[in-house]
Amino acid sequence: MTRHASFEALTAETLPVRLARTEGLVSLIGADTARWRVREVGDGNLNLVFIVEGDRGSAVVKQALPYVRLVGESWPLPLKRSFFEYHALKRQAARAPGTVPKVHHFDDAQALIVMEYLSPHIILRKALIEGRQLPRIARDLGLFMARTLFRGSDLHMKTAERKADLALFADNVELCDITESLVFSDPYFAAPLNRHTSPHLDGLVAELRADRDLKVEAQRLKHLFAANAETLLHGDLHSGSIMVTDTETRIIDPEFAFYGPMAFDVGMLLANFWMAFFAQAGHEQAGSRDAMRAYLLEVIADTWAEFRAEFSRLWRTERDGILYQRALFEDQGDTLGAEQALDHVLSTMWTDLLGFAGIEIHRRILGLAHNADFETIADEDLRAACEARALRFGRHIAVNRNRIHSLDEVNALACLIEGERLA
Amino acid sequence: MTRHASFEALTAETLPVRLARTEGLVSLIGADTARWRVREVGDGNLNLVFIVEGDRGSAVVKQALPYVRLVGESWPLPLKRSFFEYHALKRQAARAPGTVPKVHHFDDAQALIVMEYLSPHIILRKALIEGRQLPRIARDLGLFMARTLFRGSDLHMKTAERKADLALFADNVELCDITESLVFSDPYFAAPLNRHTSPHLDGLVAELRADRDLKVEAQRLKHLFAANAETLLHGDLHSGSIMVTDTETRIIDPEFAFYGPMAFDVGMLLANFWMAFFAQAGHEQAGSRDAMRAYLLEVIADTWAEFRAEFSRLWRTERDGILYQRALFEDQGDTLGAEQALDHVLSTMWTDLLGFAGIEIHRRILGLAHNADFETIADEDLRAACEARALRFGRHIAVNRNRIHSLDEVNALACLIEGERLA
Repeated sequence: MTRHASFEALTAETLPVRLARTEGLVSLIGADTARWRVREVGDGNLNLVFIVEGDRGSAVVKQALPYVRLVGESWPLPLKRSFFEYHALKRQAARAPGTVPKVHHFDDAQALIVMEYLSPHIILRKALIEGRQLPRIARDLGLFMARTLFRGSDLHMKTAERKADLALFADNVELCDITESLVFSDPYFAAPLNRHTSPHLDGLVAELRADRDLKVEAQRLKHLFAANAETLLHGDLHSGSIMVTDTETRIIDPEFAFYGPMAFDVGMLLANFWMAFFAQAGHEQAGSRDAMRAYLLEVIADTWAEFRAEFSRLWRTERDGILYQRALFEDQGDTLGAEQALDHVLSTMWTDLLGFAGIEIHRRILGLAHNADFETIADEDLRAACEARALRFGRHIAVNRNRIHSLDEVNALACLIEGERLA
Repeated sequence: MTRHASFEALTAETLPVRLARTEGLVSLIGADTARWRVREVGDGNLNLVFIVEGDRGSAVVKQALPYVRLVGESWPLPLKRSFFEYHALKRQAARAPGTVPKVHHFDDAQALIVMEYLSPHIILRKALIEGRQLPRIARDLGLFMARTLFRGSDLHMKTAERKADLALFADNVELCDITESLVFSDPYFAAPLNRHTSPHLDGLVAELRADRDLKVEAQRLKHLFAANAETLLHGDLHSGSIMVTDTETRIIDPEFAFYGPMAFDVGMLLANFWMAFFAQAGHEQAGSRDAMRAYLLEVIADTWAEFRAEFSRLWRTERDGILYQRALFEDQGDTLGAEQALDHVLSTMWTDLLGFAGIEIHRRILGLAHNADFETIADEDLRAACEARALRFGRHIAVNRNRIHSLDEVNALACLIEGERLA
């Protein structure tokens, strides 16, 4: 990797010296680096994240490390993921303006991106754990997904450009490999990196690993994930990749970006809301989170409704690509033909997103990378009980995804499973 | 395209002079170029094809032209297609040994490939028009498809290699564009390049263009074709891309190669057999082709059976990729889990191949590139009648592909439609 031959990880101490001449940073913070205040705040699984503040303003400096931070140097991970994050941020900003942090500078050799410091935003997952109801997330996230997924596909892009971009992102193979292994396979056999909360879950884990229908579904979904290069995905769109205030929603960390199936982003996001729902019992006293649970189910229903509405609007107004051409429908006076095709596309997406959601829930409880929603439940038995309900829910929607008709049904299922703890 | 700055089209006269020092050719033909006999035999739609013979032996020199030969210089087409043909031939030779011509030399700048001259092979389409029954084609083509499609996918390849190869072939965008436009869209609206046999078909053409369900299916299939980068396809696997003797079957012309859905190659091939079936009536006297029709339906059934058998064998013995990993099935003692997943994969492929077959039939009769099967029927009314039956057949299998269970049903449908001409 000669492209990163000069790479050196930053520290809070070396950052002002090393980036003193980086115009994109200096113009934001001020030229007197002695007055820069730098702190490392990365709490994710992979990277270094510095907040730099000075007289003039602030910025985030995100730098990749040549290994998985969560695991250590024993798991190397290429620095080029920073390149893919940079390119994904540029495309998302163009396709869904105002939804991602502004990028001020990119240094490929040092695998670092200087970007907007979002403040007073907090990570959505943290807010949901605290029981905060964010009023805008369903609308903002529905719009973000519809716009990025639609506009990055052959529904809208020039195909030659999409294929060139597909080729570019095809090199993000190591990060796709993480998803392919950790999400779609590891939870369903005794993979070395797996862990789960307590022996209380052993029986259920064994049951899921022996569940033939579930495993076949998980592999069908992996096949779809690996083969179906439909659009540029965020690739890791969970509540830890979203920063919020009451009035704003911003999406960060698209380093897993690649061309994959639209339903993956949507399914992963909804899965994380359903996990937040099942985790509430671990954070409440005597029904104090009832309203929060109702809010989460409403967010799920509204996110999917907003997504569908915006996707449909774009279908009717920006369907300029090679797929479902107007020449075959509207231009022949057959508007309903285009609507019929839209129903097909949304129906397939619905079926697939349920599958992806179910699998995402499993890997967050059985695999390597767990969710703070559950992890912050101190009482191990309580945590295991919450997780067990989520696991059963995930199994049901993954295996029965072809026979489930509406989000109302899925949310009713979540309530049914959640209600059983009271019985 | 600086890569082809020195490109110059060969002629039968200039070839011996220009290739006199091409070791891969000289070693086959002999060093005395004065004794080379060269003739241009290209009868396809795109390229120059020379047969070179000499004292020592023979070879084919295939050279791309910077435009579509069938249409002329008004339709430019990049020379790099020769690069993709070369790379596809190498991969097919490795994955299905003995099925493609040996490659002796490749010149990227001149867009030319020196390859084995297949003799006394003839083009399969010609043989079928003549009413010849080739005994080996079902088995050979079933094996070819199973081996190339399986071994070029994540079922077998290392994923990092598949993604690098996907990126390589993603640049074959102009040839994919031909398929995307000519196969999936043009037949269903008044595209400028369309033509059909006679006004006798006008009514049916209008009916098909007004057929909402058909058009939506065609676009669903285009979506699949454009997005589902499952394996390295031949990309143009019809009976004109196959050379045969009674004892050998060889597959040529993979310049349309790219990563697409497995079902596309299979569907296109079977479609061309069904078209041969419907064209027989144009080449017979009083039932003289009854046996040939029966043979063609048998070839179709056997090709799909051979494909399934070999694909299943590879599934059980060479499933070494990231999909449907043994760790989740056989290694847990769950052989039936792997068989269940195989059934899912084959079932989806079956549904999709029927769709691709139906669409391929339409474009060969309504679009730009017609088939010799029908074109060689001199009587225009007879030709239109044969084509009408094929069009109705194609519509039925494309639209009803989710509700058709077996090849026997499809062949029975073909017989029913063919039988109606007698009524």
